[in-house]
Amino acid sequence: MTILDTATSRRTTRKYNQTPVSEDDIRYVLETIRQSPSGSNSQPWQVIIVDDPSAKMAIREASEEGERAFYESISPERKKGYNEKGLNPSKPHLTEAPVLLVVLGDTPAPNYRPWVWVRIGYAILAVEERGLSTVTYTPSDPSLVTKILRAPEDYLVEVVLPLGYSDDPKPKEPRKPVEEFTHRNAWGHRGHLPNSQ
Amino acid sequence: MTILDTATSRRTTRKYNQTPVSEDDIRYVLETIRQSPSGSNSQPWQVIIVDDPSAKMAIREASEEGERAFYESISPERKKGYNEKGLNPSKPHLTEAPVLLVVLGDTPAPNYRPWVWVRIGYAILAVEERGLSTVTYTPSDPSLVTKILRAPEDYLVEVVLPLGYSDDPKPKEPRKPVEEFTHRNAWGHRGHLPNSQ
Repeated sequence: MTILDTATSRRTTRKYNQTPVSEDDIRYVLETIRQSPSGSNSQPWQVIIVDDPSAKMAIREASEEGERAFYESISPERKKGYNEKGLNPSKPHLTEAPVLLVVLGDTPAPNYRPWVWVRIGYAILAVEERGLSTVTYTPSDPSLVTKILRAPEDYLVEVVLPLGYSDDPKPKEPRKPVEEFTHRNAWGHRGHLPNSQ
Repeated sequence: MTILDTATSRRTTRKYNQTPVSEDDIRYVLETIRQSPSGSNSQPWQVIIVDDPSAKMAIREASEEGERAFYESISPERKKGYNEKGLNPSKPHLTEAPVLLVVLGDTPAPNYRPWVWVRIGYAILAVEERGLSTVTYTPSDPSLVTKILRAPEDYLVEVVLPLGYSDDPKPKEPRKPVEEFTHRNAWGHRGHLPNSQ
């Protein structure tokens, strides 16, 4: 399977069945993200594998507390938009998925966030390649989740990636074609794009 | 080749030979990044393919102008650290590489930067899979490069990815082993990590 095939088949998953995730698959994802680049090779990240049910529940509760505060803070229009997409403060997938991979950024490292997210891109593809699914859940109040995990104060949770087998019937959301996001040599020049294969 | 193989072989490249990059390879990278996820499927990005020599030179000059200002602004210790890594304000690879892929973020989109960088993670792996090389060059003053490309003011250059065949003898910088960045169920618990395969 090419990376294009993997990227194409991959879709966001918020419902997981109870099939366990193998230790081999977790290791594979860790070995893959280990190779990701960072500025001056600073490697500004740590990862916590969470599969203990009470630890998952604590993360879910801290996440939902942050989400409730977020939903109370936003405009009614924005809340309506989220509701129409089926999004709300409830995060049952954080306890349903057999495993959570929590990625934390090393906040004093210069420009750490982009490198953490390149790494998350690697993780998403490695997860899909192994037949697993995930969603990039970014807590609205990451400090609450960070505290639950007892990370030192220099670190902050960037993402929680549930890992499991999908039971989510929702299809992939359509992506803009290449022609709608690509220009050549200057903005607005779209006449000479590479042809489809 | 698995994604782990691709991630492992990939290394940062700052010297390119003059072998042209095929249109098929550029298309492949664009089709792969097209599939990357974003919050609420906002797709907050645009891409400019730059292969015109004078356009590449203009990007290089704008980049070097920003780098010179940056190097003048930092502490002597930090500058020394960069120099020891062979980094300085000169960016010859921006004209040597046959093609530059410039990725711009749609700055009014909520939380756009993480999604742009997930997409850059996809791009890095797709480039490597096709036998090409790149470096994630982040301009010190992205507004200078954005202006050269005549992008509207809502957009800002996040990265310039040179694409080409490597002539860079520098080996990959070593990565921390999984055991040094992974914990289980709470920070500091490292006793039960998945075994190596």
